[in-house]
Amino acid sequence: MGVSGCGKSTIAKLLSDEMNIPYFDGDDFHPEQNVAKMTNGQPLNDEDRQGWLEALNRLAKNQLKTNSCIIVCSALKEKYRNTLSNTIENQVKWIHLTGDFDLISERLNNRQGHFMTSQLLQSQFDTLETPRNAIQVDISSSPQDIVKHIKNDLMKTSEFGLFGLGVMGKSLCRNLANNGFKISMYNRHVDGVEVDVAKDFKTEYPELKDAEAYDDIAAFVNSLQQPRRIMLMVNAGKTIDDVIEDLLPHLSENDVLIDGGNSNYKKTKERYEYLKSKQIHFIGTGVSGGEKGALIGPSIMPSGDKAAYNLVKPYLETIAAKDANGLPCCTYVGPEGSGQFIKMVHNGIEYVEMQLLAEVTTILEAQGLNPDEVAETLDSWKSTASSYLLDITTTIFKRKEGGDWLVKKILDKAGNKGTGNWTTIASAELGLPSTLIASALFSRYISFFKDERVELNGIFKSSKVSELNLSSKDILEAYQFARIINHYQGFKLINEASKAYHWDLNLSEIARIWTSGCIIKSALMQELVAVFKTTSNLMTDSKIATHLKQYKPSIKQVVSQALQNDLSTPALSEALQFFNGITTAYASANVIQAQRDFFGAHTYKRLDDNSDKSYHTNWEQSN
Amino acid sequence: MGVSGCGKSTIAKLLSDEMNIPYFDGDDFHPEQNVAKMTNGQPLNDEDRQGWLEALNRLAKNQLKTNSCIIVCSALKEKYRNTLSNTIENQVKWIHLTGDFDLISERLNNRQGHFMTSQLLQSQFDTLETPRNAIQVDISSSPQDIVKHIKNDLMKTSEFGLFGLGVMGKSLCRNLANNGFKISMYNRHVDGVEVDVAKDFKTEYPELKDAEAYDDIAAFVNSLQQPRRIMLMVNAGKTIDDVIEDLLPHLSENDVLIDGGNSNYKKTKERYEYLKSKQIHFIGTGVSGGEKGALIGPSIMPSGDKAAYNLVKPYLETIAAKDANGLPCCTYVGPEGSGQFIKMVHNGIEYVEMQLLAEVTTILEAQGLNPDEVAETLDSWKSTASSYLLDITTTIFKRKEGGDWLVKKILDKAGNKGTGNWTTIASAELGLPSTLIASALFSRYISFFKDERVELNGIFKSSKVSELNLSSKDILEAYQFARIINHYQGFKLINEASKAYHWDLNLSEIARIWTSGCIIKSALMQELVAVFKTTSNLMTDSKIATHLKQYKPSIKQVVSQALQNDLSTPALSEALQFFNGITTAYASANVIQAQRDFFGAHTYKRLDDNSDKSYHTNWEQSN
Repeated sequence: MGVSGCGKSTIAKLLSDEMNIPYFDGDDFHPEQNVAKMTNGQPLNDEDRQGWLEALNRLAKNQLKTNSCIIVCSALKEKYRNTLSNTIENQVKWIHLTGDFDLISERLNNRQGHFMTSQLLQSQFDTLETPRNAIQVDISSSPQDIVKHIKNDLMKTSEFGLFGLGVMGKSLCRNLANNGFKISMYNRHVDGVEVDVAKDFKTEYPELKDAEAYDDIAAFVNSLQQPRRIMLMVNAGKTIDDVIEDLLPHLSENDVLIDGGNSNYKKTKERYEYLKSKQIHFIGTGVSGGEKGALIGPSIMPSGDKAAYNLVKPYLETIAAKDANGLPCCTYVGPEGSGQFIKMVHNGIEYVEMQLLAEVTTILEAQGLNPDEVAETLDSWKSTASSYLLDITTTIFKRKEGGDWLVKKILDKAGNKGTGNWTTIASAELGLPSTLIASALFSRYISFFKDERVELNGIFKSSKVSELNLSSKDILEAYQFARIINHYQGFKLINEASKAYHWDLNLSEIARIWTSGCIIKSALMQELVAVFKTTSNLMTDSKIATHLKQYKPSIKQVVSQALQNDLSTPALSEALQFFNGITTAYASANVIQAQRDFFGAHTYKRLDDNSDKSYHTNWEQSN
Repeated sequence: MGVSGCGKSTIAKLLSDEMNIPYFDGDDFHPEQNVAKMTNGQPLNDEDRQGWLEALNRLAKNQLKTNSCIIVCSALKEKYRNTLSNTIENQVKWIHLTGDFDLISERLNNRQGHFMTSQLLQSQFDTLETPRNAIQVDISSSPQDIVKHIKNDLMKTSEFGLFGLGVMGKSLCRNLANNGFKISMYNRHVDGVEVDVAKDFKTEYPELKDAEAYDDIAAFVNSLQQPRRIMLMVNAGKTIDDVIEDLLPHLSENDVLIDGGNSNYKKTKERYEYLKSKQIHFIGTGVSGGEKGALIGPSIMPSGDKAAYNLVKPYLETIAAKDANGLPCCTYVGPEGSGQFIKMVHNGIEYVEMQLLAEVTTILEAQGLNPDEVAETLDSWKSTASSYLLDITTTIFKRKEGGDWLVKKILDKAGNKGTGNWTTIASAELGLPSTLIASALFSRYISFFKDERVELNGIFKSSKVSELNLSSKDILEAYQFARIINHYQGFKLINEASKAYHWDLNLSEIARIWTSGCIIKSALMQELVAVFKTTSNLMTDSKIATHLKQYKPSIKQVVSQALQNDLSTPALSEALQFFNGITTAYASANVIQAQRDFFGAHTYKRLDDNSDKSYHTNWEQSN
């Protein structure tokens, strides 16, 4: 693009040869009536131009189906360019040839067969609305230099930026590069601690040869095509806010920031609104799969504006894991922080799955199995209870160091990074009984008080009172029972949050994107994709109900024997307690309501009055 | 006080007769050198006055030991008054006789033996700093009317204001009035909903005959002596902030607001700081005891500035319950929102105590006992497990309506007002395993899903698989075991919060103010007063440890049999699980650390390396 006489056709021809893509002169696409008008010396008005610009837009779209192309068109006004790039905004790259009036005027006068008065050229300059996002090239250089400049600029810009090269950030970079995306990577510089992180990382993996590496924010941002797509893989919490403030001065309207960390869903909503006020899109997305999943295909749970999602969809869906039907384990989850909410619950479910494996292996060891035998047992469960976490736990128990099992050398203090905590808090706030997540969280907390545990063990240590007498099948069925309850609670939490926040979440789609790529992928999850197509309460599904009934005698047996032997199996135990609670038609809450009314005059309702009327009794008065 | 010639001595004499308290003329207390100076016609400077004012202050203090008195002194400047009222600020009542220059000038000229030039009088007016908090009386009335006015004003002002006449607010009003305090009571006016609440309440109880009733905020605030003491008994949350904003324009420096509702402890800190910026004191206090406790003596847990506490201490400690040694169940808890924090934990403990009673009565009923027999059993536990909640639950089970037991007619959906919720959240945030509070909270949440419970009961209903075969002693011991764990967790939460927030809380004092007046008063709490004098970990106390060891076989038996019979006893079960967890020297958290390192490279520490070094293993590599 550019005013008449800036050399568009010349440059387009050379660039076309250089890049091996066709070029088209816009003027060749004028409809007959425009040609007639121009032949008669009548100027075109915007109405005349509209059909012509639309024709060029169709041309571009057709070309993009198979390849790319160069189109020559003065395109002086923003609204012309909007028509030209309609629906292909993100694939159009504007090249603006610029020069001063005198130079162009001189060149025009030197051209044979081209008659343009100074006045006409001036009117072109007056009409020109300089584009903000074009590659600007000054025409005072030689055509060869101009073409070289343009090629460099076209090659230079990256499609996608990754901010923060921790374990997950690095894996996502390699995943994007392996999928052929041109990326820019950024990691901060911290003297003596984080030095040349991005550059060193780039040299480490051949797939990153075209990736650009930065430790300067401005250079990183400028290396990106607009609208920019920048994924933040930094620590959740204050860091995200700091990073947003650091980036903001360099961003332009419609750029998209994607927070791929485990941010709190309420904060995501706040950030979304803050950035909206700055005309920047914000996508909060859960990413699960750990280091390896992020590399070969994670499960991705993006939320925010649907329109903003469409700007990043090709990237996220390409790098995501694929489900059994080949569909990406990435879907637009819903508005606000819903993606980060379901990632939080995902991690809550993960906490419980991990805790249950810790408990069943404790029981297996208490039955006298060594770690190899534990691994063997877990291995034998794969046909029934297949899951990623079962797999890795099997591998863990096999692992030896020297002649000893490594797992027995690990300090028994479990860490946590906030999401189990948040899930418990969210469930307390929403009035939902996510008892297993709380149980798994608190088990980690208990583990943390190692010194106290050792001290109290000295006071209370016990000896076995009876022999454990459980079959592998008993334990497997107890494990499966508890896993169903875990998934029931997790999806109930999602479903009730969806209602409370008006998110309209699709439980089946959520289960589907968790069937591959993520830490909690499992055969059970696969089963739930279908279950949630017909009900939001998995316990009412007849197949699941049959499982629960079948497994129940086993979990009763397992928990009882564990208790008799002073084993700590809080999650298995709570799964059964919860089942008993949620299947009790008349609960003991009547006693609690009576107590509350007794001491606090909180009133109660009655079974024999459906009118929702509140009653108060003066309990101390004798009746 | 007042300028020369305003009639101070005349009015003082009359008032002294009227009120039957002595009066003193300040001029009689000048030291010799001042008298000499004045005799020589030399004016006194502020240095001369200092010793004299201190002498009058001593006089007032001496008088206050036995009675009261009237002191006549011009006291024109604020700093004179500060010296005069030093350390007795809250007992001094200023009476300012005011009149215009001409009137006083005329009266002075009419007096025999009193020579004061206009110029001298003008200098008195110039010096006068009008006090903000005095009873102002215009001297144009007759001396008799002036004295009547003063007497009315002195009588009129209340010592303590109660804002919000809900169940608790009303009980506290009656308690204050019964203790001889002159109070003002306020309740808002809401057309057709809350009309004349305070006035009607006043007429209802004879003890409130001297209390003043308001539905106008300005009038309510103005009826109070300064510094004002206003206790807010309104809904926690936004209401408190609204009420503070409504009150602020009417308050004066050093007034004290006391929030006696169940406010979130973090909010209390914010409000404390906000009000500090306005020179208003803020005390956040827990109040426990329910309707009846508030009337006859609640347990009170105030926190904030120690100095501000001293301004309200006489009131709070007088109306509080008294412990076994006659000391008030009210103590300065600590800074910030620590009082509200411990009240929150108090309520968490209360949730669990209530839940445990709901569970043990469920078991007793499952053994075939009718409510009367349940009550009889609970009654038989009093010698071992005496507590307020056991008492009221006994009463509840006895209660009949017509020929039927009332408790069986109550809808089984338990309410909650936020504090159990907050305790669970606080414990999740602080990294503490308050498993029983979460369990009790979630049990109430489960009860809320009544429709779902009935539906699932239809799918999963079970029949007894074995007979329950538990003695009353088994169940009592299980109950007692779980109660000890409950108190362990509650006080651990307080102790760890105290460390985290640098509150320096005294666990023994906290147990002591919970031995009477509050909902969780019990023989066990009484025992803990002594226990916490020597340890912050009650499980290390030898007597408590002996109890736990003694009760453990029973709780194992009870929980196992409950499980076998599909009874829901989550808190009893979790008490045992927690005990097993916290007394396990080597927990299964090693498995969780291995899993976290496997999928997320989160690293782990080793038993055989005390250096706190982090290890990472590439688990998938074969070794």
